[in-house]
Amino acid sequence: MKAVQVFSIKPQRPTLGTFNFDTERIIACLPEEIRKEGLIFDLPLLRKIPFLLRESEELTLVLIKEEKYYFVAEAIKEKPKRVLGCAIDLGSTTIALYVYDFISERIIKEISLFNPQIEIGEDILTRLHFARKAENLAYLSKITLEAINRAFEEIGSEEIFFLSLCGNTAMTHFLLNLPVNYLIVEPYVPVVKNIPFYSAKELGFSIHPAGKIFIFPLAGTYFGGDLIAGLYETEIYKKEELSFYLDVGTNAEVVLGNRDFLLACAGAAGPALEGGIFECGTQAKKGAVEKFFMPQGETRLYYKTIGDEEPIGFCGSAVIELMADLFLQDYITPEGKINPTKVSPLLIEINGERALLLIPPDETLHKKPIYLKESEIKSFLRSKGAMYTILQLLTEKVGITFQEISTFFVAGSFGNHIDVPSAVILGMLPEEALTKSEGIGNGAGKGAVKFLQRANYKEIEEIVKKITYIELNVESRFMELLTGALFIPHVNFNLFPWVKKLKEEKRKCSKW
Amino acid sequence: MKAVQVFSIKPQRPTLGTFNFDTERIIACLPEEIRKEGLIFDLPLLRKIPFLLRESEELTLVLIKEEKYYFVAEAIKEKPKRVLGCAIDLGSTTIALYVYDFISERIIKEISLFNPQIEIGEDILTRLHFARKAENLAYLSKITLEAINRAFEEIGSEEIFFLSLCGNTAMTHFLLNLPVNYLIVEPYVPVVKNIPFYSAKELGFSIHPAGKIFIFPLAGTYFGGDLIAGLYETEIYKKEELSFYLDVGTNAEVVLGNRDFLLACAGAAGPALEGGIFECGTQAKKGAVEKFFMPQGETRLYYKTIGDEEPIGFCGSAVIELMADLFLQDYITPEGKINPTKVSPLLIEINGERALLLIPPDETLHKKPIYLKESEIKSFLRSKGAMYTILQLLTEKVGITFQEISTFFVAGSFGNHIDVPSAVILGMLPEEALTKSEGIGNGAGKGAVKFLQRANYKEIEEIVKKITYIELNVESRFMELLTGALFIPHVNFNLFPWVKKLKEEKRKCSKW
Repeated sequence: MKAVQVFSIKPQRPTLGTFNFDTERIIACLPEEIRKEGLIFDLPLLRKIPFLLRESEELTLVLIKEEKYYFVAEAIKEKPKRVLGCAIDLGSTTIALYVYDFISERIIKEISLFNPQIEIGEDILTRLHFARKAENLAYLSKITLEAINRAFEEIGSEEIFFLSLCGNTAMTHFLLNLPVNYLIVEPYVPVVKNIPFYSAKELGFSIHPAGKIFIFPLAGTYFGGDLIAGLYETEIYKKEELSFYLDVGTNAEVVLGNRDFLLACAGAAGPALEGGIFECGTQAKKGAVEKFFMPQGETRLYYKTIGDEEPIGFCGSAVIELMADLFLQDYITPEGKINPTKVSPLLIEINGERALLLIPPDETLHKKPIYLKESEIKSFLRSKGAMYTILQLLTEKVGITFQEISTFFVAGSFGNHIDVPSAVILGMLPEEALTKSEGIGNGAGKGAVKFLQRANYKEIEEIVKKITYIELNVESRFMELLTGALFIPHVNFNLFPWVKKLKEEKRKCSKW
Repeated sequence: MKAVQVFSIKPQRPTLGTFNFDTERIIACLPEEIRKEGLIFDLPLLRKIPFLLRESEELTLVLIKEEKYYFVAEAIKEKPKRVLGCAIDLGSTTIALYVYDFISERIIKEISLFNPQIEIGEDILTRLHFARKAENLAYLSKITLEAINRAFEEIGSEEIFFLSLCGNTAMTHFLLNLPVNYLIVEPYVPVVKNIPFYSAKELGFSIHPAGKIFIFPLAGTYFGGDLIAGLYETEIYKKEELSFYLDVGTNAEVVLGNRDFLLACAGAAGPALEGGIFECGTQAKKGAVEKFFMPQGETRLYYKTIGDEEPIGFCGSAVIELMADLFLQDYITPEGKINPTKVSPLLIEINGERALLLIPPDETLHKKPIYLKESEIKSFLRSKGAMYTILQLLTEKVGITFQEISTFFVAGSFGNHIDVPSAVILGMLPEEALTKSEGIGNGAGKGAVKFLQRANYKEIEEIVKKITYIELNVESRFMELLTGALFIPHVNFNLFPWVKKLKEEKRKCSKW
């Protein structure tokens, strides 16, 4: 059932000798299932109701479905053209807004904003430290709300009756102006798990004054509402078969489970995969290399940049694909070293360190070379190793193998951009992902939109209850397993028979 | 379970590798029955929680029991001496406040205020007409809140966490600033039946900022929350046997029922019974006659005034008792006429109308006579007749006789002051009330206090659901029955065998 219900009603006229209450006459027009849940009328609305009822035979009611009640937010004489809700994926870099019309039951607009908190720092940790002071925390909350409220103004603030918002644990705390002082020191304690159903007004959102907001609950310090929203989208918690849910953004967040259990884990696998650890890495913008090509037998690389501009650097996804090729063609060894025995113009040195020249300086915008250093490959191996190890650890905990997984749902920027075969070749994902992975894009945003359409509070609560969180910091088994995963694809090559075969053929099975 | 629960808790310290949320550590200290209902934390409290938890090993929590949740309103480092609630009986003349301490579980103070709305008019109808203008309605709401808030200030506003309030339908509308425009014209429609659980702040009460208020629901235009509170106090809706609940203030409000049904009815029987129709009637204050004595064979009356001052008039209760005596001693005929054949110095004329001299002018403060006119007796008969007829009508509806009633619960000023035998002699109550009546004083106030102690929202809801309201205006049977009840005690003397016997003995069976 939608989070906001719109009803056109024609209440019976009151007559002498019957039970006559204005609100009861309205309630009598509503379906039994709503009446039996219980209804609450907004106080300012209650004060208008007697006049509205007598000025118009027909009224359009806007009802908000709360967890245990229906809230009558508004009654309108003229049937409105649209009654809006907004799903918000509050990311640390981008705030994605999906404007949904409860009447036409469609997304009518998508808006993407930069998170204004970036002015304090690109990474969350900088912002968290900044927010230790109460006034700074309040500032973060304020600028975030202002940015969102500005977008609402363009949409039509008063038309928005419901928000469904998800964010990671830090983002959710910032937004609610909740202290993060104990979130950043051991044992890393968030204030709140389930977020009460506050009014949008109380939180500072400028929407309809009777508007409400649902905020996805948090399952842990590194497991926020965005993940819960993603799980809600995939419904892996309803299936009999086992699935993985992977969201690799800044962190790698992984859930393994089915209708019986959800085992969750998060690790700092992300930065490397996003390109953050590479000197020549860059965000996905004009001039960023989005794909390298390395035709068999050639000794130079071809590339494609965003906007076909002169290259300024490479996207993380491009270099990951490239590294898979470089590994297959022996430029990179299984240990992650640059092969010194390979005779190639690609082999260079940067500050005395071995590196691979990806684009020569005369071809770039800044006239400096674009390269990949050996130490960067090593860093990448730690990240990809962590990713694989998390998957391995979770299957071990449950006592299953990767073969028993029915689907690998891959969300986030990783899911959108990464070439799965390359990830498998590098040993970031098991070979089962080749045929069983399903990219779902912005799972968090989709989950938030789904909440506007379904508003099943109980289901969200059940997801959170089902989650068992594995804290990597206290899992010695993680470090044991990780050691083997710091190789390409793995110290135990037999875990990757398809990669082994490719390697023997020294060529990559890719699209080109 | 009390409306406010106070817990002293010692939350576990957070450790690495466990699920750690500040609020969850608090929730874990609470009893299972509270946890399973669901908890909501006040937002400003949530923002203090992380610091409070780390400054003190022990915290005192103040929880408010809502209908479907527990609301965590406050957490205090120092264990408070008292945590207060206040039950409010919002009467049209008097506002009675009962201050209850949830820690000692006792009423620590009773406060009685004049309802400031009296400045607009003593009777409700004047105020209702005044309130047709929005600004006037807002004014009534404002002065009522101000009067109550002033009392709170004396008690300690911030210590009060919960209010339980009942008032009749008009009083409840005034307080909530709800339009009464359609309450005063046919078909007399109140805005609301069940009053949502608003925060005290939203309604304008100055108590603890996270405080909440429960307002008793209304069952009809003439059947307000005060009646519901009274029923809640007597629990007649739980009993197998049938009971009457009578609240006679300005209106006569009557309920007949048991655990299976509640049949309710209200009529304008009150004013007469309260003394309002008598020229020489007065409110219960110094100099008001509270009792007349008419010794057998004497030809003058003795009296007792409040404060033993010179008389200024009489209370309604005193004249009712007197009328019973006057009837037994043949001064008043069964038709309600002053007996012209009786030779007595009491018989006088006032403006050409037959009257009885109760106190000669030389004995009164204002040196004017205090008397009772024949037309006043007639008016009284209409009121008392309405009262009896309502009782009769309800028993008829159910198909029972007065003998089947187990208890007549009598609340309100009527219950406090009226002599039941006199009421029976005059035919206001059936003879069964002689042995089966039970005065309960301020039933509404007691019910409101009981809500602080029990907070059973569902039970209140069930009372309201059980009520069937009989609208006298559309009951032709009422007028039929009323005709017979306009006599003393009734046109059918056989309905009152005890009175018949007394009358034959020409003396009253009273205490003196």
